[in-house]
Amino acid sequence: MKHRILIINGPNLNLLGRREPAVYGSETLDEILDRLDAAFPDVELDRYQSNSEGEIIDRLHGAGFDRSYAGIVLNAGAYTHTSLAIADAIAAIDLPVVEVHLSNIFAREEIRRRSLIAAVCSGSISGFGAKSYELAVRSLL
Amino acid sequence: MKHRILIINGPNLNLLGRREPAVYGSETLDEILDRLDAAFPDVELDRYQSNSEGEIIDRLHGAGFDRSYAGIVLNAGAYTHTSLAIADAIAAIDLPVVEVHLSNIFAREEIRRRSLIAAVCSGSISGFGAKSYELAVRSLL
Amino acid sequence: MKHRILIINGPNLNLLGRREPAVYGSETLDEILDRLDAAFPDVELDRYQSNSEGEIIDRLHGAGFDRSYAGIVLNAGAYTHTSLAIADAIAAIDLPVVEVHLSNIFAREEIRRRSLIAAVCSGSISGFGAKSYELAVRSLL
Amino acid sequence: MKHRILIINGPNLNLLGRREPAVYGSETLDEILDRLDAAFPDVELDRYQSNSEGEIIDRLHGAGFDRSYAGIVLNAGAYTHTSLAIADAIAAIDLPVVEVHLSNIFAREEIRRRSLIAAVCSGSISGFGAKSYELAVRSLL
Amino acid sequence: MKHRILIINGPNLNLLGRREPAVYGSETLDEILDRLDAAFPDVELDRYQSNSEGEIIDRLHGAGFDRSYAGIVLNAGAYTHTSLAIADAIAAIDLPVVEVHLSNIFAREEIRRRSLIAAVCSGSISGFGAKSYELAVRSLL
Amino acid sequence: MKHRILIINGPNLNLLGRREPAVYGSETLDEILDRLDAAFPDVELDRYQSNSEGEIIDRLHGAGFDRSYAGIVLNAGAYTHTSLAIADAIAAIDLPVVEVHLSNIFAREEIRRRSLIAAVCSGSISGFGAKSYELAVRSLL
Amino acid sequence: MKHRILIINGPNLNLLGRREPAVYGSETLDEILDRLDAAFPDVELDRYQSNSEGEIIDRLHGAGFDRSYAGIVLNAGAYTHTSLAIADAIAAIDLPVVEVHLSNIFAREEIRRRSLIAAVCSGSISGFGAKSYELAVRSLL
Amino acid sequence: MKHRILIINGPNLNLLGRREPAVYGSETLDEILDRLDAAFPDVELDRYQSNSEGEIIDRLHGAGFDRSYAGIVLNAGAYTHTSLAIADAIAAIDLPVVEVHLSNIFAREEIRRRSLIAAVCSGSISGFGAKSYELAVRSLL
Amino acid sequence: MKHRILIINGPNLNLLGRREPAVYGSETLDEILDRLDAAFPDVELDRYQSNSEGEIIDRLHGAGFDRSYAGIVLNAGAYTHTSLAIADAIAAIDLPVVEVHLSNIFAREEIRRRSLIAAVCSGSISGFGAKSYELAVRSLL
Amino acid sequence: MKHRILIINGPNLNLLGRREPAVYGSETLDEILDRLDAAFPDVELDRYQSNSEGEIIDRLHGAGFDRSYAGIVLNAGAYTHTSLAIADAIAAIDLPVVEVHLSNIFAREEIRRRSLIAAVCSGSISGFGAKSYELAVRSLL
Amino acid sequence: MKHRILIINGPNLNLLGRREPAVYGSETLDEILDRLDAAFPDVELDRYQSNSEGEIIDRLHGAGFDRSYAGIVLNAGAYTHTSLAIADAIAAIDLPVVEVHLSNIFAREEIRRRSLIAAVCSGSISGFGAKSYELAVRSLL
Amino acid sequence: MKHRILIINGPNLNLLGRREPAVYGSETLDEILDRLDAAFPDVELDRYQSNSEGEIIDRLHGAGFDRSYAGIVLNAGAYTHTSLAIADAIAAIDLPVVEVHLSNIFAREEIRRRSLIAAVCSGSISGFGAKSYELAVRSLL
Repeated sequence: MKHRILIINGPNLNLLGRREPAVYGSETLDEILDRLDAAFPDVELDRYQSNSEGEIIDRLHGAGFDRSYAGIVLNAGAYTHTSLAIADAIAAIDLPVVEVHLSNIFAREEIRRRSLIAAVCSGSISGFGAKSYELAVRSLL
Repeated sequence: MKHRILIINGPNLNLLGRREPAVYGSETLDEILDRLDAAFPDVELDRYQSNSEGEIIDRLHGAGFDRSYAGIVLNAGAYTHTSLAIADAIAAIDLPVVEVHLSNIFAREEIRRRSLIAAVCSGSISGFGAKSYELAVRSLL
Repeated sequence: MKHRILIINGPNLNLLGRREPAVYGSETLDEILDRLDAAFPDVELDRYQSNSEGEIIDRLHGAGFDRSYAGIVLNAGAYTHTSLAIADAIAAIDLPVVEVHLSNIFAREEIRRRSLIAAVCSGSISGFGAKSYELAVRSLL
Repeated sequence: MKHRILIINGPNLNLLGRREPAVYGSETLDEILDRLDAAFPDVELDRYQSNSEGEIIDRLHGAGFDRSYAGIVLNAGAYTHTSLAIADAIAAIDLPVVEVHLSNIFAREEIRRRSLIAAVCSGSISGFGAKSYELAVRSLL
Repeated sequence: MKHRILIINGPNLNLLGRREPAVYGSETLDEILDRLDAAFPDVELDRYQSNSEGEIIDRLHGAGFDRSYAGIVLNAGAYTHTSLAIADAIAAIDLPVVEVHLSNIFAREEIRRRSLIAAVCSGSISGFGAKSYELAVRSLL
Repeated sequence: MKHRILIINGPNLNLLGRREPAVYGSETLDEILDRLDAAFPDVELDRYQSNSEGEIIDRLHGAGFDRSYAGIVLNAGAYTHTSLAIADAIAAIDLPVVEVHLSNIFAREEIRRRSLIAAVCSGSISGFGAKSYELAVRSLL
Repeated sequence: MKHRILIINGPNLNLLGRREPAVYGSETLDEILDRLDAAFPDVELDRYQSNSEGEIIDRLHGAGFDRSYAGIVLNAGAYTHTSLAIADAIAAIDLPVVEVHLSNIFAREEIRRRSLIAAVCSGSISGFGAKSYELAVRSLL
Repeated sequence: MKHRILIINGPNLNLLGRREPAVYGSETLDEILDRLDAAFPDVELDRYQSNSEGEIIDRLHGAGFDRSYAGIVLNAGAYTHTSLAIADAIAAIDLPVVEVHLSNIFAREEIRRRSLIAAVCSGSISGFGAKSYELAVRSLL
Repeated sequence: MKHRILIINGPNLNLLGRREPAVYGSETLDEILDRLDAAFPDVELDRYQSNSEGEIIDRLHGAGFDRSYAGIVLNAGAYTHTSLAIADAIAAIDLPVVEVHLSNIFAREEIRRRSLIAAVCSGSISGFGAKSYELAVRSLL
Repeated sequence: MKHRILIINGPNLNLLGRREPAVYGSETLDEILDRLDAAFPDVELDRYQSNSEGEIIDRLHGAGFDRSYAGIVLNAGAYTHTSLAIADAIAAIDLPVVEVHLSNIFAREEIRRRSLIAAVCSGSISGFGAKSYELAVRSLL
Repeated sequence: MKHRILIINGPNLNLLGRREPAVYGSETLDEILDRLDAAFPDVELDRYQSNSEGEIIDRLHGAGFDRSYAGIVLNAGAYTHTSLAIADAIAAIDLPVVEVHLSNIFAREEIRRRSLIAAVCSGSISGFGAKSYELAVRSLL
Repeated sequence: MKHRILIINGPNLNLLGRREPAVYGSETLDEILDRLDAAFPDVELDRYQSNSEGEIIDRLHGAGFDRSYAGIVLNAGAYTHTSLAIADAIAAIDLPVVEVHLSNIFAREEIRRRSLIAAVCSGSISGFGAKSYELAVRSLL
């Protein structure tokens, strides 16, 4: 049976490829995830994107109590820096959650250098662009 | 006519009994609220839970302008520490709102010792586990 | 063809006229916007209000990629002070967004003097009551 | 045999009813405690008030090693915010200590929003006026 | 009789058009104010510019007790961030004072995001370039 | 009938004249107060000194409810910087309390530049040595 | 020969009696100083007021090197909290300078509780209204 | 003639052996001091314990002016972190005072890492359990 | 020709396997790197460990100007949090440097949550134990 | 033609030689500048001193748009630490401005270690007494 | 067999006796350690001094895994306040390490009141001059 | 006999000319120092560069006790901001040490605006590129 991993993308990541391409690249989120599917033919990668903190929490809960997942890759976008509630959701479920960021969050302004969720994730990967997702999936296998 | 009180539970409280039972106990939220119903046979206790900040605000508004409620018991979970918008909603309605927490928030990490909503609640009760709800309902009668 | 501007109002602004009228006036949000329509007969002013951070982001995205808008007037309410995700959404779209506040946010408590979204808005107007909206619309024409 | 609970009141609480009645009510401390006696006819409620940090510590020790008490209700007044020594005394004894405040300490100036003793109390109740004591006694039964 | 409004410009604004035109535009202060005159033919717009904190205070006093003014538009330049004395002068007079800034002060370095005068102004407008003055005048009519 | 004023001296002030005479002068507290008596022959100046925060609070209460006093002169020593409870006692009584210090507290280390009691005193006098007491008494007449 | 003392009043104090009379009283600065003259018939009290930091420094220098003065009474208004340059001027001259404030600066907002000049003054008096000046003059005799 | 040293123990140290023995050991304060007597047969070790800040100050004064002491060993307990008044008492007397702590205060929470009294003690010893007293006595001989 | 990557390990990492095995595992650094060699048979992985900040800088320089390296994997240990000089060395060379940590640095004490070097690294990976190195090497290929 | 450099001295520097000679030396400002003239016979050194922030800004503007100057040497005295407006004036003109201080500002109290103008000066020289001016002039040639 | 203890001295301690003798005494480090040898004839006291953080770490490791040592006495000099890497080295080895300082570090400037290594040492002794070493050795026996 | 001055360059300065030439210029350190030799034919300028904090301290000690030096020019690179130990070494020797920086450190990020060594240097020069060294040497002659 295939491994199953959930890829959750948070606020504004649906605009990838359309938003400041000089910074974030011109690939859309779907193109990135299609390439990820190709890189891991033996893994089932479920995709979820939402701009809502509450919906992301709901989805984390759902996956957490759905015994078929091996882990979660989470790019929480700006909620990384402001959402204690997502941090609590991660802590509340048993699945390993890996935090990813496309860019290096430490090279940005002060408020974005603090991650409220890092402390409850099993690991953290940032700065490798689309490759951050690939490394995160690999870390869960 | 029976008194009517609304019990609002915020993010991740739907996992009670399933999440870190060593810390939060093994009772589910429904079991806690069933016991609460039993303890106050003469009070109608409406239940609401949501992981979404916006929905909690909507529900506070709804109750605030629904003249049948005597008050609200609110366990805002992690939104306690990050949501000015919920604080504004509490301030905007005329109903007394009592803040409750299962555990002692002052014994946790720095960011959880600050409550953004306490200042606009009529009172605050924390640290008594499920009994916090009972004391809160009693305070409203 | 008429100019088209989107007016987004955030959390608790649906209570205008009902909430602390001594502070915020007794006009409802719809009455304010009706007067705004009357003041700008040649502009199509679309109205949107939500208490949810995620829905406001969705609406900003929608308007940003709908080429018919000339700009957005945003009263983000309490999210002004807590939402990096809304700030990111504003930065991600090409439309000019003007921040408005009914009251003078600088005369309130410490946490409300900081705007997370001001830095990514094209301009900021606060303290003129309902007239803040009128000035904001005018700034976009 | 009757339950026995100790009610400790700290600095300036002896002035209740005489001090800013608009804020703190016109009931004296003894009137409040008399009503408390009436509300709990089956509980022996011992009263202690002192303006001295050292005497409050002595009394906490005394009760802590007097096996007849079921718990302590403590309104530490301003020492709530400045006394690590009282916090140590609470931590040192085995009895549950419930922190109470008449008013909502979170709605006051910065320095009064920090409680040095909350973290070592079994629970905390504030903002219900004289009723705070009643809820605290009830929490101990 | 014509409305009369005083436009006060603070330190370094006399260099407009000559100082970093890429940032502040190539229009001089007089050109901006000439256009403003043209836009409000029915309003008498008095102009005052000084690099001295004390002279600006003197001018605010003068206008405050000269009953012919309907209001003041104030671009306090760097004194926005350092002058409590100008803030006191604004608070001391009965005229409405509107704070304006050409650029978005919130997008600049930390010390420039704090306005010492905003809290005592009736409203605040920033980020619209020369148009900030026009909106400010309009807000006073 | 003579005016009656209470002079309260806090911790370590009993050592005046014996403690670092180069800094605090070689006059003892009693010598200072004897001179004060001589300077105000028509005023009855009661003396109280204690090293205990609780006793100072008790004495403030006593004087506050003893209708014969015209005011209190308080040199709270180091409690100036650490005692919220003394501040509450001052706020709780109706008598004017004047804060005095022998030396200039603002020229000392950081923690001693903050006075917790100044905000509730009717006035504050510091830096004039023994003459600070004389000015304080005079301010109450 | 008469003693000679210089009374310097800083920014906005020329508005006394006209500015927020509920807070600052309805007496003008000249009326206060006329009464001061009357109270000290044997002292020559020179008056100086300016809204300019630089002019106040010039006047301090002038008095400092004019051997006829016994001391200076300085109400620096808002410059108390922002002017290191005035502090340096005080430190640079040999005359004793006494800091006065009409109101209790410690009961105001955070930024006004810090005095940059207190540390270099020989003493500090605040909160006694117009009487603060009288006490200050007396302290210099 | 025997050397004479005063051992002062502050708040809650009377509970040693009874309070959290896993942390503080099961030896009582008297047992510790009896062993100390045995270790220094040629030194007269006076014992004093109090939970009151004021009484500790009184005792420091008493010893300071009693010419028979060679020095003081002070375990100020929680007052270490909050009492400027005890620091002043130590500075006011001529005797060397050695600060001791049973446990390593630097390994505890933030507020306990700051010692207000260390700067005025002649030396500081912490972390050696009961042996801290022995080292402190030895340092004074 | 084989790719060549340099693995630099900073202070105390030579003790891996011997230091707190419960936390850091019982594998030695050499065992970890041997497994890494096995996992990447086609890559030449050079090893360097030093406890000296200066030597690590020297080694970074050496590799930076040795054109045979494809990148550097750097576990800077505690220097991560204190060494601006290593950060400058990384910024000064053209090679991509990937920051790795065995454990999740965000779950440790405050001072260890700040990385001085993250901002100049091309990416950052933490929390995956020995696997962090493998992911880092993979990110460079 | 001779090079022309403007030497601006700010508040209180007119007192050099008269103010705390032990700290600042007994040479007057004119004596220092006379020696400077002698050291640079081929350079025309214009002198300007003012205690007024606004006048210093005016002078900077004047020199900035007077094409005959090669640069400015500025000792801004206490305005170094408080004047953003002078910083803006320096940034607004094209001439190089060199910041000088007689003494080492970093060895003084906290507030004087921060220079608001350093970031916009082309260079900064401090601690060499009168020689600081000489080095600054030399740096401009 | 003799006990064996390692005495490590950090940066600048090689200058003892030559550096500011008024502060640190005129005894050289070797003279202090020679006296220490004499005081403990039954203990073998190995000496190590280095100005290099990395070498001190190496030496701590060496001693930590050399089973012949009973403990380490460490005067880390300025590294006390800046070196997390030395703290990690202490935590990594099993030997007890006692922190010593000649002078009272709490009486120095802010940055020197914080010890990064105290939390991982078994105890801490400061302020007794050369005697600090003697007490430290004694604490290890 | 020639004057002798030691030029110490700290971490990463060996890369000058190779590292970000757009920022630091394309001249190597040796080229800069060769030009310095040429500019001061009568001065013997010894060169030392190291990336190690400990070695820089050793070199400072060596020069400090080698009576042939007239002074030291020190560009401590990033150690400027992190090394208290180098500051102690400078304070410990009798030679004047002049701090230099190529670029204006005040225009860089927050952590680089603080110099730990400035307070113990005799003077400080920054922002003049290679000319900073020349001015520093001149200041020592």
